[in-house]
Amino acid sequence: MKQSQYFLKTSKTKPAEDVSINAVFLEQGGYVQKVMAGVYAYLPLGQRVLQKVEKIVREEMNTIGAGEIFLPSLHPKANWETTGRWGTLDILFKVKSQHSYEYALGPTHEELVTPMAQAVIQSYKDLPSAVYQIQTKFRDEARAKSGLLRGREFRMKDLYSFHASSQDLAKYYETVVVPAYLKIFERLGLKAIYTEASGGSFSKFSHEFQVEIESGEDTIYICDKCKMAKNKEVFSEDVECTNCGKTSWRQTMASEVGNIFKLETKFSESFNLQFTDQDGSKKPVIMGCYGIGTSRAMGVIVEKFHDEKGIIWPESVAPFRIHLLSLRGAEKEAEDLYESLLNSGIEVLYDDRDISAGAKFADSDLIGIPYRVIVSPKTIEQESVEIKKRSEQGSKLVKIDEILNSLQ
Amino acid sequence: MKQSQYFLKTSKTKPAEDVSINAVFLEQGGYVQKVMAGVYAYLPLGQRVLQKVEKIVREEMNTIGAGEIFLPSLHPKANWETTGRWGTLDILFKVKSQHSYEYALGPTHEELVTPMAQAVIQSYKDLPSAVYQIQTKFRDEARAKSGLLRGREFRMKDLYSFHASSQDLAKYYETVVVPAYLKIFERLGLKAIYTEASGGSFSKFSHEFQVEIESGEDTIYICDKCKMAKNKEVFSEDVECTNCGKTSWRQTMASEVGNIFKLETKFSESFNLQFTDQDGSKKPVIMGCYGIGTSRAMGVIVEKFHDEKGIIWPESVAPFRIHLLSLRGAEKEAEDLYESLLNSGIEVLYDDRDISAGAKFADSDLIGIPYRVIVSPKTIEQESVEIKKRSEQGSKLVKIDEILNSLQ
Repeated sequence: MKQSQYFLKTSKTKPAEDVSINAVFLEQGGYVQKVMAGVYAYLPLGQRVLQKVEKIVREEMNTIGAGEIFLPSLHPKANWETTGRWGTLDILFKVKSQHSYEYALGPTHEELVTPMAQAVIQSYKDLPSAVYQIQTKFRDEARAKSGLLRGREFRMKDLYSFHASSQDLAKYYETVVVPAYLKIFERLGLKAIYTEASGGSFSKFSHEFQVEIESGEDTIYICDKCKMAKNKEVFSEDVECTNCGKTSWRQTMASEVGNIFKLETKFSESFNLQFTDQDGSKKPVIMGCYGIGTSRAMGVIVEKFHDEKGIIWPESVAPFRIHLLSLRGAEKEAEDLYESLLNSGIEVLYDDRDISAGAKFADSDLIGIPYRVIVSPKTIEQESVEIKKRSEQGSKLVKIDEILNSLQ
Repeated sequence: MKQSQYFLKTSKTKPAEDVSINAVFLEQGGYVQKVMAGVYAYLPLGQRVLQKVEKIVREEMNTIGAGEIFLPSLHPKANWETTGRWGTLDILFKVKSQHSYEYALGPTHEELVTPMAQAVIQSYKDLPSAVYQIQTKFRDEARAKSGLLRGREFRMKDLYSFHASSQDLAKYYETVVVPAYLKIFERLGLKAIYTEASGGSFSKFSHEFQVEIESGEDTIYICDKCKMAKNKEVFSEDVECTNCGKTSWRQTMASEVGNIFKLETKFSESFNLQFTDQDGSKKPVIMGCYGIGTSRAMGVIVEKFHDEKGIIWPESVAPFRIHLLSLRGAEKEAEDLYESLLNSGIEVLYDDRDISAGAKFADSDLIGIPYRVIVSPKTIEQESVEIKKRSEQGSKLVKIDEILNSLQ
C-alpha cells in the first residue's frame, strides 16, 4: 500500500479529551477517530488491526468446534422482560420505533441466543453444542473513557455453550475454553492471567482474563508461589491461597480482556429451553457464556506495547509487516523493492511521500509497524537497505537480495 | 462438518407470517431465524453464505483500491441536524441515552464519513480517494417484509468516493464502480441490470442494479434493442430510448441489489469538507456513494435460484460445496470419504445422522448445496458413489478414486 494514496494522515496534536495511551497513539497514528465519547470510527489502518485480532479469535473458536452465528442488535423488548433485565440492567440502550415497537440495543445476547437455541436443541443427542459471534455491542455507560478500553459501542466475541449437565459445562469451561482463551491471548501477544472474579447471582465465581498494565481499571492479587489470581472483588486479605496454601499475594493493576461465566440454568429456565434426556425426562439446558472484547484487546495491546514515540505492534496484529521508507534520491530503488515485496506476498506500507526523512521516521515510530526498511542513496551505494525492528534500538544493513531471508 | 454435530435443524413447518420464497426456504433450511418483523438471526449455515457474499464484495472493493473502514452505528444527533435529516428522514431510528445524549442509529453513513474525511483530505493531492465498509444498518421501516429483502436491520456494503471535480466523479462512477459492481453480481451468480433511477434532490439520475425476479418490488423497463433500463419512476411511455433511439420497451419486475449515487457537494457543503486546489483556492470535495445490500443479495439469490423443493445455491456462495449423505450400511465408507474430502480442502457438510434416506434427500434438496454425494451399500458394491448436481435432474455413478476429478 502506497502511503501517498492511503486513507491515512497522522497528527501531531494530542487528542484533547482523552489522555489514555491507546487513545492518544491510535488517534494520532490515524488508526481510529473519536466520533464522540465511547464511540470510535476505524480508519483503514485501524480496521486492519481489528480484523487481525478478530481473525485470530475466529480461528480459535472454529478450532474448538463452535459454529459462527450472527444475531441482531435490535432485540424485542419482550425478551428482556422475560429475564427481568429490561428494568434492571442500567446500561441497556432502549430504542423506540415510530411504529410503536420498542427494542433493546444488544449489550450482550443471552436474551436472543437462548430462545434461538430452542429450534436446534431438543434432545440429549443435540448436546453439548456451542455457537459464537463477533459483532458490535452497545452499552449506555455513564462514563465512557480510556479510548478503546470502555466504549458505548464496541466490538466483542461472545460464545455460548449448551450442556446436559453442570459437570459437562465445568469440563467444557476448564478444558476447552480456558486453553483456547489462553492461546488466543498468546497469539495476540498478551500474557493473560486467569483470574477468579465474582459470579454475580448465578454462580460462586466467574473468571476473567486479565492483562497487567499500569493503566488497568481492575486491581488483582496474584499468588507469587502458584500464580493463582483473584480480582479484588473476591479477595480477602491474609487468606491463604486456595490453590497452594501460601499467603504471598502481590497486588497489581490489570485490564480485563476476556471473561467467562457459568450461567447454569439462569437463562434456559427463563426461556424454557429444555432437552429430553436419555430417560425421557425434560430438563433445563445448562449454559455457559464466554466473552472477549476484540476492540478492547486492541486498546490493551497498545497500552502494553508502546514507547514514548508510539506503538510497537506484535507481529500477529500489526496492520502491515514492513514499513518501507524511501529517502530522497532513492525513489526508484524503493519502488522496485516495494513491487518485489508485494510479489512475495508481504504486507507492506510504502511511505512514498515527498517529505523529510525526519517526518517519515516520526510517523513510522508512531504507527509502529514491526519492521522498518529504509532505502536511501547511502544504502544503495552498498546495494543494501537499512532494516530496523520497531522493538529494538539498533538497525542493520542488509543486502537487497537477502531481505526476505533476514525477515524470517 | 458433521451434520449430527452442527447447529442446524431444518423444519417442515412453513413460517406463518412471511410467504416470500427466500424467507420460507432460508427459515425452513435452518439458515436464518426470524427474531421479529424485519430482523433476522443468522445461524451457522446462513452466516457462511452471508460471509461468502461479503467476501466477494470485499475482494472487488479492495481490487479497485478502496480502503476498508468501520464507522459506528451510534451517530451524534448533531451530525444529522447539520444535514437537516434528523427531522426529515422518516426511517431514522433515534436512541435516547439515560445520560442525556441522543443518537441516530445509522441507516447510512454520509453524516459520519464526510466529517471523518476532513482529517485525511486537505489537498488536491489527497484526491481521488475512496473508502468502504461492510456492516449492519438500521431503518425504521413502516413495513418490513419479504424476508431478507426489506429489513429493519440488515447488512450492507457502502462505498464513498471523494473527488476534485464532477468530471473525475463521473469517470470513477462509470469506469470504476459500474464494472466492479457488474463483476460482483456476476460472481454472486446474478445478472444485474444497470438501471436509471431517480437522483432525488442532488442529481438528475442515480443508478440501480436490478435483478429480474417475479417477486421484485420494482417495475423496470428494458429496451429490447440496446438493453438500456429505466426504473418506472423515471420512465415515460412512448419515449425513445435515450441510448439507441428505438421504442421497444419491455416491462418487468425486478429487485434492487445495488444503487449508486452522485452526491456531488451535497454533504461536503454541509460539513465544510474542502480541499485546496492546485491554484491555492478552497473548493468543496465532490462525493459519490455506492451501496450493495449484502443480506438482501442473499435473499435475491434464493428468490432467483430455487425449485419447489428448496434452494439451488450458485457455487460461489453455497455454504458448502458438497453435501455428503451416508445411507444405512455405508457409514464406514462415508466416514472415510468425508475425511479424504476434508483433507483435500473441500467444504463438505456430511449428513451422518441415523435417519431415513428419504429424510436426508428432502433436507438436502431444501438446503441446496451444489453437489450431493451419496454413499450407499449399493454404490459401494461398485466401488462408487452417486453424484447429483442440485441444479440438474440426473445423477451419475463415479468411482471413489475419481470423485475429486469429477468435481472440477
